[in-house]
Amino acid sequence: MNDMKDDSGSNASGMSRRQFINTTALVGLTLGVAACDDKSAPAAAGSNGSKAAGGAADAGVHLKPGELDTYYGLWSGGHTGDMRVLGLPSGRELLRIPCFVPDALVGWGITNESKAVMGTKPDGSLRYTVGDTHHTHASYKDGNYDGRYAWINDKINSRLARIRLDYFVCDKITQLPNVQGFHGIFPDKRDPVDPAINYTTRVFCGGEFAIPLPNAGIEDETKYRSLFTCVDAETMEVRWQVLIDGNCDLVASSFDGKLAATNQYNIEMGARYEDMMSAERDACLFFNIARIEEAVKAGKFTTIGDSKVPVVDGTRESNKDPKTALTAYVSVPKNPHGVNASPDQKYFICAGKLSPTVTTIELAKVLEWFDGKMEKLDDAIVAEVEVGLGPLHTAFDGRGNAYTTLFLDSQVVKWNIEKAIAFHNGDKNAQYVVDRIDVHYQPGHINASQSETIAADGKYLAVGCKFSKDRFLPVGPLHAENEQLIDISGDKMVLLADHPVRGEPHDFIIFKRELVKPVQVYALDDFPNAVKDPKESGVFRDGNKVTVKLTSQAPAFSMREFKVKKGDVVTLILTNLDKIEDLTHGFAIPNYNINFIVNPLETKSVTFVADQVGVFWGYCTHFCHALHLEMRTRMIVEG
Amino acid sequence: MNDMKDDSGSNASGMSRRQFINTTALVGLTLGVAACDDKSAPAAAGSNGSKAAGGAADAGVHLKPGELDTYYGLWSGGHTGDMRVLGLPSGRELLRIPCFVPDALVGWGITNESKAVMGTKPDGSLRYTVGDTHHTHASYKDGNYDGRYAWINDKINSRLARIRLDYFVCDKITQLPNVQGFHGIFPDKRDPVDPAINYTTRVFCGGEFAIPLPNAGIEDETKYRSLFTCVDAETMEVRWQVLIDGNCDLVASSFDGKLAATNQYNIEMGARYEDMMSAERDACLFFNIARIEEAVKAGKFTTIGDSKVPVVDGTRESNKDPKTALTAYVSVPKNPHGVNASPDQKYFICAGKLSPTVTTIELAKVLEWFDGKMEKLDDAIVAEVEVGLGPLHTAFDGRGNAYTTLFLDSQVVKWNIEKAIAFHNGDKNAQYVVDRIDVHYQPGHINASQSETIAADGKYLAVGCKFSKDRFLPVGPLHAENEQLIDISGDKMVLLADHPVRGEPHDFIIFKRELVKPVQVYALDDFPNAVKDPKESGVFRDGNKVTVKLTSQAPAFSMREFKVKKGDVVTLILTNLDKIEDLTHGFAIPNYNINFIVNPLETKSVTFVADQVGVFWGYCTHFCHALHLEMRTRMIVEG
Repeated sequence: MNDMKDDSGSNASGMSRRQFINTTALVGLTLGVAACDDKSAPAAAGSNGSKAAGGAADAGVHLKPGELDTYYGLWSGGHTGDMRVLGLPSGRELLRIPCFVPDALVGWGITNESKAVMGTKPDGSLRYTVGDTHHTHASYKDGNYDGRYAWINDKINSRLARIRLDYFVCDKITQLPNVQGFHGIFPDKRDPVDPAINYTTRVFCGGEFAIPLPNAGIEDETKYRSLFTCVDAETMEVRWQVLIDGNCDLVASSFDGKLAATNQYNIEMGARYEDMMSAERDACLFFNIARIEEAVKAGKFTTIGDSKVPVVDGTRESNKDPKTALTAYVSVPKNPHGVNASPDQKYFICAGKLSPTVTTIELAKVLEWFDGKMEKLDDAIVAEVEVGLGPLHTAFDGRGNAYTTLFLDSQVVKWNIEKAIAFHNGDKNAQYVVDRIDVHYQPGHINASQSETIAADGKYLAVGCKFSKDRFLPVGPLHAENEQLIDISGDKMVLLADHPVRGEPHDFIIFKRELVKPVQVYALDDFPNAVKDPKESGVFRDGNKVTVKLTSQAPAFSMREFKVKKGDVVTLILTNLDKIEDLTHGFAIPNYNINFIVNPLETKSVTFVADQVGVFWGYCTHFCHALHLEMRTRMIVEG
Repeated sequence: MNDMKDDSGSNASGMSRRQFINTTALVGLTLGVAACDDKSAPAAAGSNGSKAAGGAADAGVHLKPGELDTYYGLWSGGHTGDMRVLGLPSGRELLRIPCFVPDALVGWGITNESKAVMGTKPDGSLRYTVGDTHHTHASYKDGNYDGRYAWINDKINSRLARIRLDYFVCDKITQLPNVQGFHGIFPDKRDPVDPAINYTTRVFCGGEFAIPLPNAGIEDETKYRSLFTCVDAETMEVRWQVLIDGNCDLVASSFDGKLAATNQYNIEMGARYEDMMSAERDACLFFNIARIEEAVKAGKFTTIGDSKVPVVDGTRESNKDPKTALTAYVSVPKNPHGVNASPDQKYFICAGKLSPTVTTIELAKVLEWFDGKMEKLDDAIVAEVEVGLGPLHTAFDGRGNAYTTLFLDSQVVKWNIEKAIAFHNGDKNAQYVVDRIDVHYQPGHINASQSETIAADGKYLAVGCKFSKDRFLPVGPLHAENEQLIDISGDKMVLLADHPVRGEPHDFIIFKRELVKPVQVYALDDFPNAVKDPKESGVFRDGNKVTVKLTSQAPAFSMREFKVKKGDVVTLILTNLDKIEDLTHGFAIPNYNINFIVNPLETKSVTFVADQVGVFWGYCTHFCHALHLEMRTRMIVEG
């Protein structure tokens, strides 16, 4: 990186050396070597001009024992397949919510209830046990989070999961048809037509990898296509899809509900990475939601293979007439990555990735184009300015400033949107770059407290650094990622803390704690199969199908022992009758590969074949009581 | 808890009200209600006399950005089945090392190499996917950690895992025969006979649940037995087992290598929890390691069922003569829990659990009994003093003080061992209780920096609190556990910080960072199947068995595409040829349930049946480069 680093680059000038990456695809390779050569990285903490924490900011980030955080963070778990809940500013991880991948603590993927959410094969085993979560967003009302739902995607198997924000559990997972490499997501913020629907009812999903449609092994990659998908926020069913040219990377939605967009890094539709970089400009592809839904309603759609989902045509060729177009391809320099909606509701910002620029697109102008009132679609671009090497994602402070991660520069650049527009319009004295700060190292996603809401408050910025290198004690070859926290309340950014996280979180959102109302004890009636009284306990036989009903109340299970026969298909239902907050029990059966927990007043069930004769001590695995070790039940499997 | 709480209990007096729990088993139930009634718990942070952090201690725990921790912590992952690596004093989680449970990030349970460690069924699927890790300890040399290995146990399926502390990975897992509910572990610290072996060569493992031997469904619980097991630290093979009366709870080993011990909470050998509390005293069961190994060598053993492991007889009846005894049952009050070795090498401390006492056993006296020089075994008890309600585990500061968790009192009590001995010997003025501090809430395990080594340094104390209740932002019914950090460098304990952790860590150790030497880049030769050059890449067919050899170098895989046929059994081998620290790649195949990472110069392989025709984009899942998204290879499965 040495030969590319512009250490004096604290303003908009001095960028000319960087423009070379705009010129040839081959430079991608050179960049690669540079980005990954740690000899060129700062060698030790504090040696590279990091602004260390101190004073008031420092006091704020380090909570005293017992002090509560003021913000929640919802973090994508990357390939651990979960959503993580953090407290901020402390950066402490409070919960992992299993979604796409089994979780041996709660029994996710073990219990019948979780298997029903995750999806099973005909033999009852889990369809998938891996995941690759990328993006996490929450439901909106009146432009701010309303604490109902969050969503997270799995790129590997094209799944979307919904999390209930009362119990902080995943309640539905939908697999998208006809797509591969499902990458970006964003909920809408209101209905494009009905003003009464001022809250999220749709989740938009971007398909990244173009494939044969249907996928039947066609080798001719020019025939591969990607789709943009809309999922119903309540039913979690797929409403419609849009066939497109190019691919879908990140996704954004407008505050008025009328537009969604996705960045495209491969308008070339190449099948080898060398072929994905030939075009100087790719695109930010806009979707006119009302028109798409009118087209679906009017039956102007096809279907693909076995899927029943209506697919409308959003390709360039079919959408040349603005007045009828469902889609609009605004050009953006070379292989852009993130697209983010500014909290003033006016702009989408596209980060350049292989271009050192950020492109500001004015949404009102895109709508003018759809209305036939603006001839050239690219006139919707109101600013395209250089900010540094490898721009990936952008966050906002609600005071007109944007914060963009520079992957190659290992920096966050703070820049002013209106000044960038002025600069773009010819005012070369407009100093749109306000500040820069080194981060450690190679930042990807970024987000600020309340950033993509109308309530952006410009307090904290979190930066997901992909490499941590020397920032933590060494722990072998696999390094933690480094989520850094930055104070953005003043003119200058101040680095507050490094937080190691298990790879790799990608995206996250940060919001005020009063926006959610978590419930900490279940209601018995939430579970139709609840064993509501210890007296209902017992072994109930129907042929070789056996139901074991059990309750837990510290320090005992309702039955001290129970008997089944070899070959029985046993369904064990356990209700935790302890109703005190935090009094969770676990239940494991040795050698039977069963373990799960039941939270206060929760009911779960497992089904297994009693294929081993002998005595098996079911025991409580979640410390509950002074007599926790003694809390067991004896399963006797008779031969 | 209100009616039992002794708020004035900051010294050894005033305990009489607590003694009632020593009298009847039924009180266990009463305790249960008290322990779990959160109305009696402190309602809010800071309202219960917590000593908040401040001054120098506070500055020490909150690292500035880029500052490194000074201690490593190895934390048991509870039922997430992993070992967690923390940095201290910051409390940051640096790594999770998957052991017993699949891990979708690294591909643990997905790759052939990890499946070989974890163990598979005849059909190639994993034998177990759940775990319940409890105790973690590391290898010793000359009484201190030597940075070679750590071990962790799985209680559900009676497995012991070993972690290499160079690469911080699990390299071997052993399933113990003939036992169920394998609970405590401890490595030995030197050989009992050969003075040249001044380091760990054995790991002792306590079996908790008594079962029929062999386990063939016998209902008569009086015939159930538990075993104490010795595993070879290098080969990880089971060396021998000891048949015992009672059960094994926690385990300790002496610094001279001669003795190991386990606490027993159920000498009654009851099968229902009500029957496990009738005896007023249970036991701390000592094992004479040299004599046991002589007996094995002399062929004085049996075997059980299909197991070939030699089993010697350690029951009370067979070990009445001290001069030949293999075991010695020292009595300890009612249902003890932890047993810990003091760093002065002289004592084992047993915590009373249902008794408000700690029992100090002098090891030299136990050896005198084995030598026939002391008539009454219980004369080895040199102190048995009251410390508070629900003592569970004890740590040490190297200055003669012990720190015991009081589960029911939600406190840590600091007490002086020699003063406790003086008190026990009749000096009623000996104020052995030095200090108490409230913790939040219901503490289980405790450990101090370097505690159970000869280098105990009395700096930091970590306390694993089982309940966190109101200490963190609410996140639904499942609460984090609360690992609290306490400064023990002065006379008074000072609470420094709350750290939420995913349930439930149980045990942990804390040691100075210079004691391990992690290696952060693999050697290609570590892997016999490494693809050492991109030119070796290709598809190699042997009937329907296909080997795909692939390498990764950012931002590309060595092949942009490869073809296989439907029905092929494909083994894909991937070597990461990037050799720069922290440059990890991932590899996922959509819809094929495959994802794993390869660290610098690491090789991994997966085997799968190509059962779906079509185009499947294998892609890099671990952010590596500006062109990470473009880093793919196309698997074409032909029909």
